Amino acid sequence: MQKSVPELEGMLRGDYKSLARIISMVENEHPLAAEILLSLNPDYKIPVIGITGPPGAGKSTLVNVLLEQLSKSEKKVAVLAIDPSSPFNKGSLLGDRIRMSKQFNDPHIYIRSIASRGALGGLSEKTSEITDVLRSAPFDIILIETVGVGQSEIDIMGLADQTVVVLVPESGDEIQHAKSGLMEIANVFVVNKADREGADLFASRLSSMLKEKKVDVPVFKTIADRSFGVEKLLDYLFTRANTGNPLRIEQLMEKAWRLIQRKRMKNIDKTSLRERIEGQSRLQGFNLYRFVDDYY
Amino acid sequence: MQKSVPELEGMLRGDYKSLARIISMVENEHPLAAEILLSLNPDYKIPVIGITGPPGAGKSTLVNVLLEQLSKSEKKVAVLAIDPSSPFNKGSLLGDRIRMSKQFNDPHIYIRSIASRGALGGLSEKTSEITDVLRSAPFDIILIETVGVGQSEIDIMGLADQTVVVLVPESGDEIQHAKSGLMEIANVFVVNKADREGADLFASRLSSMLKEKKVDVPVFKTIADRSFGVEKLLDYLFTRANTGNPLRIEQLMEKAWRLIQRKRMKNIDKTSLRERIEGQSRLQGFNLYRFVDDYY
Repeated sequence: MQKSVPELEGMLRGDYKSLARIISMVENEHPLAAEILLSLNPDYKIPVIGITGPPGAGKSTLVNVLLEQLSKSEKKVAVLAIDPSSPFNKGSLLGDRIRMSKQFNDPHIYIRSIASRGALGGLSEKTSEITDVLRSAPFDIILIETVGVGQSEIDIMGLADQTVVVLVPESGDEIQHAKSGLMEIANVFVVNKADREGADLFASRLSSMLKEKKVDVPVFKTIADRSFGVEKLLDYLFTRANTGNPLRIEQLMEKAWRLIQRKRMKNIDKTSLRERIEGQSRLQGFNLYRFVDDYY
Repeated sequence: MQKSVPELEGMLRGDYKSLARIISMVENEHPLAAEILLSLNPDYKIPVIGITGPPGAGKSTLVNVLLEQLSKSEKKVAVLAIDPSSPFNKGSLLGDRIRMSKQFNDPHIYIRSIASRGALGGLSEKTSEITDVLRSAPFDIILIETVGVGQSEIDIMGLADQTVVVLVPESGDEIQHAKSGLMEIANVFVVNKADREGADLFASRLSSMLKEKKVDVPVFKTIADRSFGVEKLLDYLFTRANTGNPLRIEQLMEKAWRLIQRKRMKNIDKTSLRERIEGQSRLQGFNLYRFVDDYY
């Protein structure tokens, strides 16, 4: 099967150009995309680390320092940076930052930025598919960075083996706000910019909150722009990765469900659905439940 | 068919107890829920008005004043108040407020509070089903109030004929923030608490922004707690309702899609899906795409 997509062989040899082409084919729904996905052999032992948090927390700096450390210890690392884009307003904030990164030409590091065009503004199914591509290429660790706004925060939990939530000492309100959901998605908290006032207090309050909830979520303090605390964080992530991902089956279930859904809805012609609805909905007493029951 | 659900007749006669029971049956997935939905005759001429906006904008006060005015002019009105509840943290903020409302015993007014247990924190499918129930009971107007946090804001657009976004003079930042999406979902803006400083300036800046975007979205100024400006708003909503909802077909399409999906996924046994995944995913080279292809 691999014969028809020669880039797959290149990808397995560690060639980034081949990998990039494979990802583009998946991202752009190339006719061979389905074949590519069917022929992958994703390695679930490679840790996939989600990195999220509110804007301004220093995620990008932290990721850059993580990359530096990983490269130093000869680890091959892939970064998938999710560009925020609302269903209305397509933006591209991360792409430029990445091209400026000094790690961009490091052979240990593969960086890719993709747009999140997901339903409801969350991460798209493509993000999950591209993660499977990365799990099939030879990497030691995969980082997925999202700007922590809205739905993508929650979606990352369905994708990553561990989710790191990056905060700053001033994030007190943020974390307590019911809507944030940050408390629930974090496997690891990082209080970045820990040289700022109030950092120790915030970190220890956060730790006690977590202890009260009886969850095993550590709080690390880092000063990313001085590389402080990053090594310890990495050690933890790799150690933790050895015990496996307790959410794995749940994540696979969710994804299988979506794949089955897609397969079963494939033969529905949207044009004829629209035409039928346009016709029928003009009639007195139109009921969509009966309509679906009658036609589908 | 209606025979087996006697409350449907009561509902059509305008009996609120019957209506409440019907809604509860739909909300709680009673065995007769499907039959109820199939036997509805929703009236698409009844305007369904979504009311949303950031916390603290005075939505509840505005809704109370709208109710007062509508009741005075002998209009029958239903209010569906969506209680915010994250997938993690089930809250009930609106319920108590409603029970305290002086309109609670007004025979022109039916108020119902439901929890939003939607996928991804948005409005659940139940909200849409209950709206269809309300469209089938004799009402002149239906108000759906959501607290404007996250996904429910965007979902309301898929449900309502017109969406009113309530802001305060201090909402300037809120509206410009890319993540809010408020600009895109509003059919009508209300600048409430318009006696506060900066109200006129904010309202006129908002108007010019909308004019630049060439969208036909009016900006109303209200002082809800003094009933100021509310009558004009209501006039607009009823006038606009006569021209129909340009999103109707799109909304029906989306909903039909979800209904067809549900129907086609009905026979999938989650337990056996889980067992299969648990077994297979332990094997070397497990690929979920192949798995779904083979089994479903």
